[in-house]
Amino acid sequence: MAIKIGILGYGNLGKGVEAAIKKNEDLELVAVYTRRAPESLSIATPGAAVKSIEVLAGGKEAIDVLIICSGSATDLPQQTPRFAALYNVIDSFDTHAKIPEHFAAVDAAAKNAGKIGIISCGWDPGMFSINRVYSLSVLPDGEAYTFWGRGVSQGHSDAVRRIEGVKDCRQYTVPVPEALEAVRSGSNPTLTTAQKHTRECFVVAEEGADLARIENEIKTMPNYFADYDTTVHFIDEAQMKAEHAALPHGGSVIYSGTSSEGTKHVIEYSLKLDSNPEFTGSVLAAFARAAYKLNKEGATGAKTVLDIAPSYLSAKSGEELRKHYL
Amino acid sequence: MAIKIGILGYGNLGKGVEAAIKKNEDLELVAVYTRRAPESLSIATPGAAVKSIEVLAGGKEAIDVLIICSGSATDLPQQTPRFAALYNVIDSFDTHAKIPEHFAAVDAAAKNAGKIGIISCGWDPGMFSINRVYSLSVLPDGEAYTFWGRGVSQGHSDAVRRIEGVKDCRQYTVPVPEALEAVRSGSNPTLTTAQKHTRECFVVAEEGADLARIENEIKTMPNYFADYDTTVHFIDEAQMKAEHAALPHGGSVIYSGTSSEGTKHVIEYSLKLDSNPEFTGSVLAAFARAAYKLNKEGATGAKTVLDIAPSYLSAKSGEELRKHYL
Repeated sequence: MAIKIGILGYGNLGKGVEAAIKKNEDLELVAVYTRRAPESLSIATPGAAVKSIEVLAGGKEAIDVLIICSGSATDLPQQTPRFAALYNVIDSFDTHAKIPEHFAAVDAAAKNAGKIGIISCGWDPGMFSINRVYSLSVLPDGEAYTFWGRGVSQGHSDAVRRIEGVKDCRQYTVPVPEALEAVRSGSNPTLTTAQKHTRECFVVAEEGADLARIENEIKTMPNYFADYDTTVHFIDEAQMKAEHAALPHGGSVIYSGTSSEGTKHVIEYSLKLDSNPEFTGSVLAAFARAAYKLNKEGATGAKTVLDIAPSYLSAKSGEELRKHYL
Repeated sequence: MAIKIGILGYGNLGKGVEAAIKKNEDLELVAVYTRRAPESLSIATPGAAVKSIEVLAGGKEAIDVLIICSGSATDLPQQTPRFAALYNVIDSFDTHAKIPEHFAAVDAAAKNAGKIGIISCGWDPGMFSINRVYSLSVLPDGEAYTFWGRGVSQGHSDAVRRIEGVKDCRQYTVPVPEALEAVRSGSNPTLTTAQKHTRECFVVAEEGADLARIENEIKTMPNYFADYDTTVHFIDEAQMKAEHAALPHGGSVIYSGTSSEGTKHVIEYSLKLDSNPEFTGSVLAAFARAAYKLNKEGATGAKTVLDIAPSYLSAKSGEELRKHYL
C-alpha cells in the first residue's frame, strides 16, 4: 500500500514534488489541488485527479499527507495551519524571521486534530539547517558559514522585474571565491552576507527603455542590491529563453570548529542542483514519508526537519539501513 | 545540573572524549574507568575520578551515560552489551559486517534494563552514515560514493608494524583526485575502493634491515595493500616524531542522483579533521547527550545515529534552534 499524497499548488514546486513522487515507489500522487479552474490544468501523472482547493475544506479527501506548495509570503501562513486541522501536512515555509510564529500556529491546529505538520522543509531551511545543527552540536566551539549559489534567486529576479522598463530578469547569487577559501581554511573570518556573495542580473528591457537608468535602479535598490557588488547584463528574449530557462541553485554550509587548543576541524556540506524546485520537491517527498510514519506512531503537532530522525525519511527498514548504509 | 559522563578506556579516543566534554558546559566528566591500575593514570580533568573497570559491575556508579572507548575487534562486542544492562551506554563500534549482531546484543540487554545503548557512533560509521541515508532518501535514484583521507589508518599502520624489521609506520589513505572529480561531475562511475584510494607508508626500519624486502612485503600484502597503488618512504625516528605525530583524517560522502530525466544533483559532505580521535570523541559526546535525553523520555534499547533526530544532539532548546539555526 503506497502512501497517498496530495499536492496543493501546481507551480514550479508542485511540479517538482510530482517528479519526486515518481522516483519513490512507496509514494502515490492521488490528487493535485488548485485555486485555478481544475479543467485548465494538465498534470504529468496519469491517474491522479485535479481538484479545486475548495474540496479540501471538507476534510474528507483520501490522502495520507498534503504537501503544500504555495508561496511563503502570504499563502502558507494561512494554508498550513488551516489544513493541519484536517490532514497531515508539510510545507517549505522559508521566511526565517516568522518561523516561530508559523510553528506555533501549525502546532496548535495539528495537535488539536491529532495530525502532524512539518514546516520549513527544503534545503535552506531544510538540509542546510540539519547540517548547521549537527555541526554545532558536535563542535560547539565553532562557527557556521552559509553560502548560496551559484543559482537563481526568485525574490531578487522578481524585484528587478518590478522596475519600469524591465520585461524579464534572472538574478544569480554567486559566492565570492576568496570568502569560500578563507572559511575553508578554518580561519573563522567575520563576513557579512554581502562580503560572501555577489549578484549578477540578466535583464531583458523593453524597447527604447533607458538602460542606464534601469542599471542604476537595480544597483541602488536597498536590501536587495545596494550593499552588494552587482553586475547587470542586458540580453534579448531569445537569449533569456536559450540560456536561462533552468533554475539551478546550490550552496554550502561550512562549519569550522575547535576541539582543543590548536586542533581544528572543517565540516562542509554542499549542494550542486540542476533544478531548485525539483530538489526542494524531493526533500518534501522524503519528509512527507516521515510525516506519515510519525503520525501512524501517534506523534502529533508541528515538527521541523530538526525533530525527525534520518531513518524516518527512508523507505528502507531499520535492518536494511544498518546493514548497508551505516 | 550537568549530565554526568563516565569514560571507559583512556587511549586516544578516551582522551578525545575528555577534550570534547570540556567544550560542552552541560556535560561533566565524573570518572574514567580503566583496566590499568587506576593510580598509574593521570587524566586531564581535575576533579574527575580514576577507577578500576571492576567497580562498574555493581551498577551503582553515579553516571548518566557511559561512553565506551575500547577497541571494536574484541572489547566492544563484550563490553557494550554487558554495560548496557547497567547504564546508558554509547560506543563507536566500526566493524561494519558485525553491526546487526552487535545491535541485537545491545538491544536485548538495554531493553531489559530500561536503558539506551547507542552503537557505531563517530564519523564512519556515524556522520557519514547519516549523510548517506539523508541523500538516498531524498534522491532514491542515485549513488553514494565514500572517500577516506587524506588521513592515518591505524589498522594499516599496525599491519606494516608487524613486518619483520619495521620499528614504526604511519599509513596514509589518500583519495585519488581523478576519481573524486569523476564522482563530483555526476557521471556515476563504477569504482572499487582501490580505484578511489592510494596508500602512502612512512616507515622507520631497524638498523641493517633489508629495505627492499620490507617494501615488497608491504606492497604485496593481501587485502591491505596488494590491490592498491602503494608508495613506501623510509624515514628516521626523528622525522616520524616531527612530521607524523598527529592523527589527521577526513574524507567525503558524495551522492549523485537524478530527480527527472537529465536533471542531476550532487550532494557532498566532507570532513577535514586535525585529529581523528578528538573529532570522533566530539561526536560521541553529542550523542551521549541524546542518549540521556531519550532515556529520560522513556526510550530504551539499542539505537544508531540514524534513529536520533538532530535536535536531541544539541544543548540548545527547540525554540532556540528554530529561531537561530533553522
